[in-house]
Amino acid sequence: MNNTQLSIETLDRAQERFLETLDKVTIEEANVMPEPLIKSITWLIWYTARMIDFQISDLKNQSSLWIADVWTDRFNLFLPDDTADYKHTPEEAEQVKVADKALLVGYLDASNQLAKAYLTNLDEATLSEIIDENYTPPVGRQARIVSIIDDAVMHSGQAIYTGRMVIGK
Amino acid sequence: MNNTQLSIETLDRAQERFLETLDKVTIEEANVMPEPLIKSITWLIWYTARMIDFQISDLKNQSSLWIADVWTDRFNLFLPDDTADYKHTPEEAEQVKVADKALLVGYLDASNQLAKAYLTNLDEATLSEIIDENYTPPVGRQARIVSIIDDAVMHSGQAIYTGRMVIGK
Repeated sequence: MNNTQLSIETLDRAQERFLETLDKVTIEEANVMPEPLIKSITWLIWYTARMIDFQISDLKNQSSLWIADVWTDRFNLFLPDDTADYKHTPEEAEQVKVADKALLVGYLDASNQLAKAYLTNLDEATLSEIIDENYTPPVGRQARIVSIIDDAVMHSGQAIYTGRMVIGK
Repeated sequence: MNNTQLSIETLDRAQERFLETLDKVTIEEANVMPEPLIKSITWLIWYTARMIDFQISDLKNQSSLWIADVWTDRFNLFLPDDTADYKHTPEEAEQVKVADKALLVGYLDASNQLAKAYLTNLDEATLSEIIDENYTPPVGRQARIVSIIDDAVMHSGQAIYTGRMVIGK
């Protein structure tokens, strides 16, 4: 067992919660933002998959799946590839819609697989390395990993609330 | 470093998020359920503190802080001590109100400290032990710990959405 095993399992919980939430709604309902500040289930899954993808790819010094595996073409959104997801205005968030749940499920799963493979094979000696000097104090690899897991899980909880607001249960 | 270090840090993120969310609202706003199925910030913090407290205390085979440290008297709710929090009807959830933020902050911090001390001192050889036969398959200690962390973080994300609905930002 390595030091990231519990994190891997926690990430799986987030994915399971997103899939259960998505299962309860139609694709039209998944695309609904119930209020301007409450994102759609679609946005929340897309955001989380991208957040995992971009940050893990960065830790691996490789191109994101969004670009390399052409998820950008499949989603075909009216947003630039470098859109700052977490700063989205309601109008930008509204652009994140899909016609098929399989797209969301596929990209979330691809990102999760990327993260889990990375965490499984991680050399634990590298956890203390500084990987981002853009913050004060600088961010270490371990803190970045915690941040990725935390962000995925917290958005999966938000998806449940969006679902309740959209379908009333 | 032990195998639970990342989980400890993830739990801290949930607490930080709850405190930041609570800071943005008055105590009256914290007590508001914006819709019948959307819990108040007060309920979400109380629930999370209790969930951590009861489950970690159970893993330690000791009485909950809720009883032993008389948080039940301080909260003085019109609910039994063994209320099934996660099954609360809107009417039951409405009973969870407090007059002072310090009560929420205090109980959440006490529960978090309990969990972090437990995780820090955990004998890793016990992670694979079965600790709950009430499920099929039975639940191991590791899965229970993952569940506690996951549940805390996902409810902290929901608190952000409740806050946006209550104060519109």
